[in-house]
Amino acid sequence: MSDKEKSWSINRRDLLGATAGGAVLAAAGTGGLLASGEPARAAGKFALEPGELDEYYGFWSSGQTGEIRILGVPSMREFMRIPVFNRCSATGWGQTNESLKILTEGLLPESKQYLKAQGKVTYDNGDLHHPHMSFTDGTYDGRYLFANDKANTRVARVRCDVMKCDKIIEIPNAKDIHGLRPQKFPRTGYVFANGEHEAPLVNDGKILDKPEEYVNIFTAIDGDEMKVAWQVIVSGNLDNCDCDYQGKYAFATSYNSEMGMNLADMTASETDHVVIFDIKAIEEAVAAGDYQELHGVPVVDGRKGSKLTRYVPIPNSPHGCNAAPDKRHIVINGKLSPTVSVLDVEKIPALFDTDADPRSCVVAEPQLGLGPLHTAFDGKGNGYTTLFLDSQVAKWNIDKAIRAYAGEDVDPIISKVDVHYQPGHNSTSMGETAEADGKWLISMNKFSKDRFLNVGPLKPENEQLIDISGDEMKVVHDGPTFAEPHDSIIVHRSKVNPVTVWDRNDPTFEEARKQAAADGVDLEEGADEPIRDGNKVRVYMTSVAPTFSLEKFTVKQGDEVTVYVTNLDDIDDLTHGFCLSNFGIAMEVAPLATASVTFVAERPGVHWFYCQWFCHALHMEMRGRMFVEPRAA
Amino acid sequence: MSDKEKSWSINRRDLLGATAGGAVLAAAGTGGLLASGEPARAAGKFALEPGELDEYYGFWSSGQTGEIRILGVPSMREFMRIPVFNRCSATGWGQTNESLKILTEGLLPESKQYLKAQGKVTYDNGDLHHPHMSFTDGTYDGRYLFANDKANTRVARVRCDVMKCDKIIEIPNAKDIHGLRPQKFPRTGYVFANGEHEAPLVNDGKILDKPEEYVNIFTAIDGDEMKVAWQVIVSGNLDNCDCDYQGKYAFATSYNSEMGMNLADMTASETDHVVIFDIKAIEEAVAAGDYQELHGVPVVDGRKGSKLTRYVPIPNSPHGCNAAPDKRHIVINGKLSPTVSVLDVEKIPALFDTDADPRSCVVAEPQLGLGPLHTAFDGKGNGYTTLFLDSQVAKWNIDKAIRAYAGEDVDPIISKVDVHYQPGHNSTSMGETAEADGKWLISMNKFSKDRFLNVGPLKPENEQLIDISGDEMKVVHDGPTFAEPHDSIIVHRSKVNPVTVWDRNDPTFEEARKQAAADGVDLEEGADEPIRDGNKVRVYMTSVAPTFSLEKFTVKQGDEVTVYVTNLDDIDDLTHGFCLSNFGIAMEVAPLATASVTFVAERPGVHWFYCQWFCHALHMEMRGRMFVEPRAA
Repeated sequence: MSDKEKSWSINRRDLLGATAGGAVLAAAGTGGLLASGEPARAAGKFALEPGELDEYYGFWSSGQTGEIRILGVPSMREFMRIPVFNRCSATGWGQTNESLKILTEGLLPESKQYLKAQGKVTYDNGDLHHPHMSFTDGTYDGRYLFANDKANTRVARVRCDVMKCDKIIEIPNAKDIHGLRPQKFPRTGYVFANGEHEAPLVNDGKILDKPEEYVNIFTAIDGDEMKVAWQVIVSGNLDNCDCDYQGKYAFATSYNSEMGMNLADMTASETDHVVIFDIKAIEEAVAAGDYQELHGVPVVDGRKGSKLTRYVPIPNSPHGCNAAPDKRHIVINGKLSPTVSVLDVEKIPALFDTDADPRSCVVAEPQLGLGPLHTAFDGKGNGYTTLFLDSQVAKWNIDKAIRAYAGEDVDPIISKVDVHYQPGHNSTSMGETAEADGKWLISMNKFSKDRFLNVGPLKPENEQLIDISGDEMKVVHDGPTFAEPHDSIIVHRSKVNPVTVWDRNDPTFEEARKQAAADGVDLEEGADEPIRDGNKVRVYMTSVAPTFSLEKFTVKQGDEVTVYVTNLDDIDDLTHGFCLSNFGIAMEVAPLATASVTFVAERPGVHWFYCQWFCHALHMEMRGRMFVEPRAA
Repeated sequence: MSDKEKSWSINRRDLLGATAGGAVLAAAGTGGLLASGEPARAAGKFALEPGELDEYYGFWSSGQTGEIRILGVPSMREFMRIPVFNRCSATGWGQTNESLKILTEGLLPESKQYLKAQGKVTYDNGDLHHPHMSFTDGTYDGRYLFANDKANTRVARVRCDVMKCDKIIEIPNAKDIHGLRPQKFPRTGYVFANGEHEAPLVNDGKILDKPEEYVNIFTAIDGDEMKVAWQVIVSGNLDNCDCDYQGKYAFATSYNSEMGMNLADMTASETDHVVIFDIKAIEEAVAAGDYQELHGVPVVDGRKGSKLTRYVPIPNSPHGCNAAPDKRHIVINGKLSPTVSVLDVEKIPALFDTDADPRSCVVAEPQLGLGPLHTAFDGKGNGYTTLFLDSQVAKWNIDKAIRAYAGEDVDPIISKVDVHYQPGHNSTSMGETAEADGKWLISMNKFSKDRFLNVGPLKPENEQLIDISGDEMKVVHDGPTFAEPHDSIIVHRSKVNPVTVWDRNDPTFEEARKQAAADGVDLEEGADEPIRDGNKVRVYMTSVAPTFSLEKFTVKQGDEVTVYVTNLDDIDDLTHGFCLSNFGIAMEVAPLATASVTFVAERPGVHWFYCQWFCHALHMEMRGRMFVEPRAA
């Protein structure tokens, strides 16, 4: 056993021994507290003047809340929630016909059947971990955001022109999508997605407690079409992923190469691995028909021994996977090992072409501290690695780490800073692109404990803003967030250009336009009376502050009513709403948008609809009545 | 017509004329922009150092999002979302058995019937406008928050020890609860709630388009029991409400004394009114049996002519209703009139006792600007009134306004400040209590327009923090919020003392304790195997980071499965989650809490459950398998 191996082994034992005895938990609980003390002194300018604009958009996942959030950086103010995998009371996401189309059309048939048995048409929850923007030529192009749902094995896309989700697909064959990254070069292109949890490839109940027959699936999605392009069966499970700047390889970590089904078995081995996927080789295998088709998707076998993949041993339970903006290095974060492993993409062809030792692409493996989870970059040759157990961020130099690994007596660690507490993901300004600019670092911390006023047993997480423009990192702001600030990207505002009003030809309300045409109605005009088609009734109205075009309309008890509202106000920020009281109906109708909702009018009497999006001095008066004639007794 | 009356009339005509032609809208759209210019210079210390605690809790409504939010003031950081009327993906609110009990037990029978026809058991949305804390002796007592749901006519209560909603009731007879305030003295006591929208008292469809037969209902809820104590039929509709510091009177504004059903009719009259409710007289009428019972609630008739109420004419369409901390004055905000009307509670007994002219209790009526909506107070004799159309806040002196009304040549207006844009509610630190301290003012603005990076057609609102410690108001921070920062209260941190872990005897998980006892299971121990009762299966597990007590369990396809999770970790902030993938199941389990969820296992195969609340270095490994044995073919 080499010294390096010994050090992994010792650290692993320490950690696992501590885990079993509860000491790691104690460390997670108090380590950061002990390490904290006085607040860091303020540096940099995070506190903008009233009216001053942020330099960056921050796109934030919300973890188990299931939405994407837009923040400003450096002010850390939250501008917007984009509902994705959740149900939103405000916008009607999960209720409007337009959102239900997006939420249901990509579901697998067996999921629809399960949901039907629960009295539902779609999932109401999600666990959105990794929001990433589409790339062109190695940097953000402002077209889309993509994000995973670990809870229900889905991938979603958000349009950055209107900042709304337009596609959600459930990934077949795979189980519980965790890591997700878009292709960086030449463009996105593919969106790579890791199935985290092991299961039978055909999971119909014939195989149950036989882990030896479980597999894991790596998926490449066509980001333009939002369809699965191909899948790869791998050895071990999959955690986080990334890809190179050449468009040749994708990478995925595995914390459970053991295929263990409990804590002891999952952490039994001293090494796990990172899988390297040869994208061109996989495409050729698919083109050659060298795959099985499952759920309409070509699935190739990339388990150990395959020509399509390589498995590089990495110290125990690697977690984060981060491509450096130097376009050459991939950093794998050790989690239970105090090390990060640096892969050189230029050494990878030899692994595939000449079966070189998989470890030959590892060019550095610095020890950074306890619990390294993720690494961000400044574009100046440095990495910033979160240390979960130490409650710190370590700044280190990639080149020095490579020289140290080669035997030179040089310390790659430049500095460390305490964070509060237990950091997971981190992100730097433009840091996951070739345009990393080294201004700001966000540390997304899983515990806040004493950092904010006590709000009861459930506490916020804490995302800290760190000025990395100088040699020393300086924590300049503590930002609480509701569950959970899982991951984020920081995008220069020059990359993003949203519109201010909807285009009347937007595909979002295509179905409404078609139905209106079939009914001989112009959506921009509305209809004076409901259009009846058996017990189906369609109501078309428009909104101009402070009135709806209909003051009242009448339906019969038991009718299936669809209300279409088209907002004719084309003024910046003049969103209306349609809320039908005691019917559980509410939706957003932004400037020049159409939205629609369908319900059964099983409630006789006089019922008010009103605008619930404050629009005018006479906003309260923007209302009307729906009369529901009672069913004959 | 007096000069005063003329001025109302002129202003009303200007506003309405402009409305018809669209100019008010234009003002709403650009008035603020024109009035803005350079950002206010920074004053006061809103930007706290990392780790520094806020002085105040801010409890925020979220409007159509349906939740309550906890912010810190002055930092304006959002600490927590409390799900109330919404569906929450993160916590499982609207899915756990504990939350569904709260969300369903207070529903009216006809609502349950309607919801059943939609395939639902409760509403998924709300429109939460007015969060207010319980009072004792004229100030906050830290027990509860109460809030209305305009969308589905409900009132909710939040426990401030755990910061979770514990009761929701649907209000019978009334329609669309808007204004809500707790009794200030001697304690809460009553929670007063306004039904905003006119409807037949028995709204079963027999009366439809006959507005002359519609009524509006004022409701007093017993805040301890969360049951309706009594209701009052009023003339006109109801908007906002408040009550005095003596425990004698409640007040409610009406913007539609006309009982108009469209914009022109609603704004036809030059005056509307504020209704004054004589609480003791109403209690006596109820005690004397002088009421009709509807939905089990005593309903008294307080329409014009009743001894239980008085109607004080107020210039057109009054909106906000605010009791001053001097314990004497009630400010009614004119909306379409540029005035606020100041009522003196000492002059009110004469209205009831000697039938004095209702206007005799009005002691001031200063003209403040266009669109006065709400007034907050500093405890130093001044009011701060939002001017919606002017996009300003006006600071004015109550005593000077009274002297001016009495004929003295004195200008009550002290200063004005631009806000961005179109302010609705505002709130001051402790400002709706007798302990108003005059430090901070929040202006909750309905439009943000150009104040933040563009995030598409749907923009955030903007709540601005204003330093009111000096003579001049200074805007020190722009804070964006998702729909919508409808109203807020600012509570000194000394008033609120949440716990950090749950009490194992908490009533929230009473049903779980009972079921476990019936099954011979100790919740804190869990059970090694599922407990089967026909096709009902109960699974009891505990959580201690990073493991669940069950590594796996087996059920049959079609079983109705209930999973109970008890979190044994009693460490500050160590919340776990239970997420069952591809089953749409996820819930929060905070330290020492129990949570449960029920579903039909209509999905054969191997399915993972995992902790979705980051808890430990080995959090990813905190998972287990559910086997669903397929139904025999």
